[in-house]
Amino acid sequence: MANTVDKYFDLVDQNQQKFIETLREVVEIPSVSSDASKRGEVVRMGEWLQARWEQLGAQCKRIDPGKQILEGEELDLPPVILGQYGNDANKKTVLVYGHYDVQPALLEEDPFTLVEMDDGRLVGRGSTDDKGPILGWLLCVETHKQAGLDFPVNLKFCFEGMEESGSEGLDAIIIDQADKWFKGTDVVCISDNYWLGKNKPCLTHGLRGVSYFHLEVEGPGADLHSGVFGGTVHEPMVDLVHLLSKLVDTNGRIQIPGIYDQVMPVTDEEELTYENLEFSHVALATDLKHDVIIHAEERDTLKHRWRYPTLSIHGVEGAFYSPGDKTVIPAKVKGKFSLRTVPNMEPKRVAELVTAFLEKEFAKLGSKNRMRVIETHGGRWWYSSPNHPNFVAGARATELVYGVKPDLTREGGSIPVTLTFEENLNVNVLLLPMGAADDGAHSINEKIDRRNYIQGIKLLGAYLHEVAVTDMTA
Amino acid sequence: MANTVDKYFDLVDQNQQKFIETLREVVEIPSVSSDASKRGEVVRMGEWLQARWEQLGAQCKRIDPGKQILEGEELDLPPVILGQYGNDANKKTVLVYGHYDVQPALLEEDPFTLVEMDDGRLVGRGSTDDKGPILGWLLCVETHKQAGLDFPVNLKFCFEGMEESGSEGLDAIIIDQADKWFKGTDVVCISDNYWLGKNKPCLTHGLRGVSYFHLEVEGPGADLHSGVFGGTVHEPMVDLVHLLSKLVDTNGRIQIPGIYDQVMPVTDEEELTYENLEFSHVALATDLKHDVIIHAEERDTLKHRWRYPTLSIHGVEGAFYSPGDKTVIPAKVKGKFSLRTVPNMEPKRVAELVTAFLEKEFAKLGSKNRMRVIETHGGRWWYSSPNHPNFVAGARATELVYGVKPDLTREGGSIPVTLTFEENLNVNVLLLPMGAADDGAHSINEKIDRRNYIQGIKLLGAYLHEVAVTDMTA
Repeated sequence: MANTVDKYFDLVDQNQQKFIETLREVVEIPSVSSDASKRGEVVRMGEWLQARWEQLGAQCKRIDPGKQILEGEELDLPPVILGQYGNDANKKTVLVYGHYDVQPALLEEDPFTLVEMDDGRLVGRGSTDDKGPILGWLLCVETHKQAGLDFPVNLKFCFEGMEESGSEGLDAIIIDQADKWFKGTDVVCISDNYWLGKNKPCLTHGLRGVSYFHLEVEGPGADLHSGVFGGTVHEPMVDLVHLLSKLVDTNGRIQIPGIYDQVMPVTDEEELTYENLEFSHVALATDLKHDVIIHAEERDTLKHRWRYPTLSIHGVEGAFYSPGDKTVIPAKVKGKFSLRTVPNMEPKRVAELVTAFLEKEFAKLGSKNRMRVIETHGGRWWYSSPNHPNFVAGARATELVYGVKPDLTREGGSIPVTLTFEENLNVNVLLLPMGAADDGAHSINEKIDRRNYIQGIKLLGAYLHEVAVTDMTA
Repeated sequence: MANTVDKYFDLVDQNQQKFIETLREVVEIPSVSSDASKRGEVVRMGEWLQARWEQLGAQCKRIDPGKQILEGEELDLPPVILGQYGNDANKKTVLVYGHYDVQPALLEEDPFTLVEMDDGRLVGRGSTDDKGPILGWLLCVETHKQAGLDFPVNLKFCFEGMEESGSEGLDAIIIDQADKWFKGTDVVCISDNYWLGKNKPCLTHGLRGVSYFHLEVEGPGADLHSGVFGGTVHEPMVDLVHLLSKLVDTNGRIQIPGIYDQVMPVTDEEELTYENLEFSHVALATDLKHDVIIHAEERDTLKHRWRYPTLSIHGVEGAFYSPGDKTVIPAKVKGKFSLRTVPNMEPKRVAELVTAFLEKEFAKLGSKNRMRVIETHGGRWWYSSPNHPNFVAGARATELVYGVKPDLTREGGSIPVTLTFEENLNVNVLLLPMGAADDGAHSINEKIDRRNYIQGIKLLGAYLHEVAVTDMTA
């Protein structure tokens, strides 16, 4: 293996500029999934990928998930491109996922032209999210094939064009294809997140779930004039702010009894994973513009991002929200809040605790208004042991390419497809990011560093070679 | 006097149908001040009035207040029509105010055609607000003149065309004309509000003031993703709901120390005015659709509408307000709330108390966010003794027309022009409504009852006759 991997690394180094040109070619396709006028470009990007893979000899299957209504227009959803490269019963089968659509961008930044900066940044929409990583898999196969190197695994892939717009239609396809196209998958790898910092690679083994609630308070039959009715009727907004204020304190401590009972305790082993991470409050406060950080220690910030539940209040529907003054008493308001959930919280239990608590607090108010708690979404967290062989393979590959042990990270948000694969294919999923924390995936001037792109192409290849020689049943 | 008034009443009864036709004529002019496309109609209505008054021999002065921007268009503000009918040094001078613009209306209801219903309703936009009342003054003068009856007072008038759109430009004109056109005014009468109920006339002697506040809480430099930052930064929305919840309880009791210290106590004399008013909780709960009334006794509801301060929470600017779910942590939010103020509260003191209280409560939270209290408006209450001779004249006129003592009412909202006249002309102002509580001034199918219109024309005339024989210096 060492010999093949070394040759692969050399070829990647020799082909750097060619690989950057390929990135330039795909950045120039403005595959913005949220823009109806760009839908043709999204489809073109999917077709570009399928054609390139088929040139390499991959077997592809295009699935069109159906229609959507966008900006009043009925549009075809862009295709999900399934593929298989190699079918050797003696090799392991790795499924990789990525997306070929991108976020919208301001035209001022000329987002669809890749610009190479002197400091090594490759600036362009999609460079890091997620066109760089999906090219990584393609260029890895292409490089092996052109040099006549044995490809270490059977590779299956699943590339979608709607990730930036809610992955519409994807879950149904994964569920449907679990025992068909995806049959025989040993492990899954997704390269669609980021390092914790700017310099140190990481493997990601956990994501939080999210339970979203609408807290509705309804009073009179119609909005009222505060001059006439202020002080004489129970005001829904008054009840609502009283209830919302009971949920969480300014330090982020959730006040709902029982919520923390379900949280997995921190083990000594886990505590060690917070040592030596590339993360600093100084950098965080700079990014935030104002230091509004709650915790004194970096590890506490990370624990509250990764492994403790949190509760955020997002807004109010039905009340006055415009600039200026309006003297309305809103008749019906909905407070919006969500909990980020962690092992071993159950969404159902969370909803029960939230509802029971709010009902009790509402009863204490003694209001004649009516209150209702509605759970609009209850998505589970995802957690994988970083000791799984799939992660061991990822860690060895990282050391080989970067010469350091990767940080072990979790993320505070959710990447729902991770759980969909794990639950439907019953295999381990590794999140193996290519880009760095400062890539600005959804911001202006999105970039990937030349280092991350080129070493990333090596990393994805090295990972496949490591999977090939690692006992996945361990 | 009795002889003249009797003759006047007879003539009004004889001319009922003619007066309704005049109302029909003005309802047909769609003088909607908030609709740029209708601005010409507003001006036409002002010119109609001026021409009719000039036909009667009134001296008029048209003042054009200037320009406004509406729906992106620069428009001339409709004219303020000042007038004087009679100039006899031996007579008192009464200034009356009204407005000739109307609220917008749904076209489905055919709002600009007056419809006489069998039950006596005269349905049409502006019938009660405020075209019926302004015609009342005109038809009173016309009737006297045509019958050769001596007119009891010198009448000055001030009719504007922007009342439904914030009376833009009016205050400056009143201030400027206080010592010019309005010089010599003994008392003011405004007929632009409503009875407390549907059957019993009233005089209105108080209005609440309003102090409006924006409570701003600012945290990070930009909105954040709750997945990444929830539980690790002080969230502005969390601080905001905590602060808003401290202001008032569900029963409308304001929690800001010192607010009630400035409130005029209820005297025995005032307590008596709550006896026998035409007001019932049963009717109120029906109007509200749901019984969300705080107080058990009708008089307490009226006290909290009229003579106690109240605090209402209107909404939040800067947070998520749309239907659906969004997992944002808003970076900067503004809570909007207002206090309705009553004798003897000073807006300046109210703002000081509100600000000091919120600063203290915010300090208790221990948040790193920044908080700011902004008073955007501080309008004073208006209160007149119902024993003033101007009110005595109004009460006598009411008894003469309706055969009952009028209710003495106050209103929870504000009619700012009332205070502008009182403060700049230094004379007493009487609010003498023509319409009833159920006229639906700003709703669909606005109406005035035929009884209120015809008896109202009598009432305004009788009031002028009573002023003529009442010692206003008493």
